[in-house]
Formats: sequence, structure tokens, C-alpha cells
Amino acid sequence: MKNYRLSLCYDGTRYNGWQRLGSTDNTIQQKVEALLSRLLEQEVEVAASGRTDAGVHARKQICSFHAETDQDRGKLLSEIRRYLPQDIGALELTEAAPRFHARLNCTGKTYLYRIWTSEQPNVFERNYLYVYTKPLDVERMKTAAAMLCGEHDFAAFTNAKHMKKATVRKIHDIQFEQTGEELRLYFSGNGFLYNMVRILTGTLLEIGAGERAPEEIPEIFASRSREKAGFLVPAKGLILWDVQY
Amino acid sequence: MKNYRLSLCYDGTRYNGWQRLGSTDNTIQQKVEALLSRLLEQEVEVAASGRTDAGVHARKQICSFHAETDQDRGKLLSEIRRYLPQDIGALELTEAAPRFHARLNCTGKTYLYRIWTSEQPNVFERNYLYVYTKPLDVERMKTAAAMLCGEHDFAAFTNAKHMKKATVRKIHDIQFEQTGEELRLYFSGNGFLYNMVRILTGTLLEIGAGERAPEEIPEIFASRSREKAGFLVPAKGLILWDVQY
Repeated sequence: MKNYRLSLCYDGTRYNGWQRLGSTDNTIQQKVEALLSRLLEQEVEVAASGRTDAGVHARKQICSFHAETDQDRGKLLSEIRRYLPQDIGALELTEAAPRFHARLNCTGKTYLYRIWTSEQPNVFERNYLYVYTKPLDVERMKTAAAMLCGEHDFAAFTNAKHMKKATVRKIHDIQFEQTGEELRLYFSGNGFLYNMVRILTGTLLEIGAGERAPEEIPEIFASRSREKAGFLVPAKGLILWDVQY
Repeated sequence: MKNYRLSLCYDGTRYNGWQRLGSTDNTIQQKVEALLSRLLEQEVEVAASGRTDAGVHARKQICSFHAETDQDRGKLLSEIRRYLPQDIGALELTEAAPRFHARLNCTGKTYLYRIWTSEQPNVFERNYLYVYTKPLDVERMKTAAAMLCGEHDFAAFTNAKHMKKATVRKIHDIQFEQTGEELRLYFSGNGFLYNMVRILTGTLLEIGAGERAPEEIPEIFASRSREKAGFLVPAKGLILWDVQY
């Protein structure tokens, strides 16, 4: 039995997220498992570093799966590339240590959120950008971002329903990058709750637009209440950027 | 009667090219004319700098149209932006001199052809790239490109059927740009025949791949025969980059 590590990228626009819901649903996991099962002539289950929601993209998603096979790895990668849909790409396929598991061994992730700040249309990247045209005070956003970093209870920044689970996470840093009309926010942390990056981004945008103050952040943390945090920005601007092990 | 100059960008993936074929076809001209006619409450005919074929994109296409209206120009631009489909964008709307005509006054154009030279997938830009993975000798391509520049009879480099029309054009230059796995070719000239940029690109790729020699270029010109030139690269890698007046 071999253990493989598969690195994927995908345009999540037309998918119902990563996680398989049934045997014929429109999820990325279902597409990848169905293809691997066909190519390897056995039932293959694929674990990813984490789920991505409907409409969320991945520049680099890491997966792992076990299979009983003698097939050449380079040949297998070529076949995977040939038969995956055009909006899912296989970046790399390597043999992993027997106990490697893409989700359980993951130590951190980086997400990118892309904001297009202009009325000028960007038709070519429209599926990967959130258009937000209120004037933004980026320095003010950076002040708030610094207050979000570190280890905190992010219960207010998630739409997860099962709040019995631990909601403490650590954000290592939030990087800002401005190029032309685009503002990019890179969130690195040891893990992220359901919708957390999108609610953090919505909160930072409301602060940048002057609708709330950076000083509210401690209160939001303390409240543990979703209503205290900012709005949920759309999925299409979110990209799983990198996964750490 | 006012004369307007409208600057557009579009992702041509799902369109049947620029030029209107009927009143309900899926062309960019039809979409734009239908919207302007509705907003301005009169029949509006839009002239573009030139047609783009099915699947071809525009970073900047220049159009002109006449209309009888008192509407505020800024407000009109906002309305156009609001109601255009997501894959067509209005960059600018200005009042033009009474006799300005987007096609008749055009003095030159620049087209970009984007080639992705790697097996590594690029899912996010897949609709704007042609994947060509044979190893390329770019210096050899540049030698051939230099021979294509200048004023020539490009009859061999077009799929146009009505060859009675003049087929002499002048290419000002062909610029090469390499970034990571992408090779970009920028063609600037006083005008381009039907499919000309795509056949020039196919010919340059065959030369780069060692399948023909730069020295064949003069023979191809002299033949005036389509079969002597290279293959037609797909529409999706072609982008109308700029229009000169």
C-alpha cells in the first residue's frame, strides 16, 4: 500500500466546495476521488488539508490518499492531468511517508482574500475578486489587523453551528499588498474556523471604510457573538494560498 | 447629435465574436447595441476599431456611436457598467469629435498572444492561454519575427476568402516577453487580416520548435498561399491589447 501526497489547484467557481456530499455531487473531492478510483481501479478516498466552501479557490491545496499500485508516478500524474476538468489542476504527486495525512498533519495555512477597489471593471479576473469601492483607510485596517493577530477565541468570527468545538486559533500574521486597483490580504495561521477569513475580511473592510473603529476588536472577541463582527464577504475573492506541514 | 467614444474590455470566451450577426445573436456588438438602445431610448449602432473573432478577448477595444441625448455622461457610464454582462466592461466614455469613427480613424493596433509553455496547470487563466509544451528556441523565433516586421503582402497569413482585397499590411514590431512559464507575443501594426495574428503565432511556434527555419519566411510571403504558413493557434490566447488613433 502506497501513500501519496497530491498538490492541487482549482477554480472553485462552479463547484459546491471541496467536501463530497454524495456520490454524484458537484464537489472537488468527488471529482478527484472518482478519477483516482477509475485510474487506479480501486476505491480511493482523498483527504485534503481542509475543506474549502462553495466558490472558494485554491492556488495550492494538499491532499493525501492510499492506493495499492505499481503504476509509475510520472505516468499517473500525466493521466490525472489529462482527465481532470479544466478548472482543477494537479501540480505535484509524490510518495509520502506511510503515516502522512493531509489534514491531521497540517500545521498551518495561508489564505488570500482579493479586493478590487475600483469602478473600473476587471473582466478577466472577475471570478477571483470581490469588488468593494468605498474609500478605504488602509492604515486603519492594518491597526485592526495587528489586534487580530495572535492567539484568540474567534467564536465571534465564525458561522459554525457546533460551538462546542474549540474556537481558539492563532493568526501568525495578516499581510497587506496593494497593486494598482487591487488590495490583497494574506492571512496566515494555525487553522481557521468556518467562514472565519471572510468574516475577518468583512470586519477589516468596515473598519477601513470608517464604519467601525479598530478599538472594537477586543469587544468583538469578548462577546463571542457573530452579530458583533463584520459582514461575510463573498466566497469568490477567497483563495487557499498555501498549506504548511 | 452627440458622438461618443466608448472604451471596452471583454472576456470573449462565451461570445460569437464582436460582429453582430442578427438581432438576437450572442455577439458583443449585439449586447452593447441592445443595452445602449435601451438606455438611450433610440436605435444605436456601434462601430468598433475592428472585429474580434469568436473566443478572442479585448483588454481595450475602442468603439464609437452617435446618439441624441442630454443625459449626463458620468451617469450614462455608470448605467452602462451596471447593466453590461459581467464579462464585458466599460472602461471609459468620452465625447468625441463629430467625425470620429472607431474603425475608419484607427491607425494601428496591438494584439497580445499568450502561450503557456508548461505542463504545470494554470487553472485561473486557462481561458486566456494557449498551452504549448514543445521546447522553444526563443532566439530562433525572434530571428523569424524580425523578418515578419515591415510592410509585406500577408496573403499567406490569412484565412480571408475575399482575396481581391488588399493584403498588404505593415507590422511595426513583435515584442517577446517571458515571465515564469508564460511567453507573450505582442504584435503591433497598421492593421491585421482575418486570423493573421493567430497564423503568425503558429508559424513562429513551429519555427521555435525546430519544425521549420526562419529562412522560410520570404518563401511563405512570396507564395501568397495559406498552406505554406504555420498552423492556426486557438482564439482563446488572443487579446486585443491596444488601439491607436
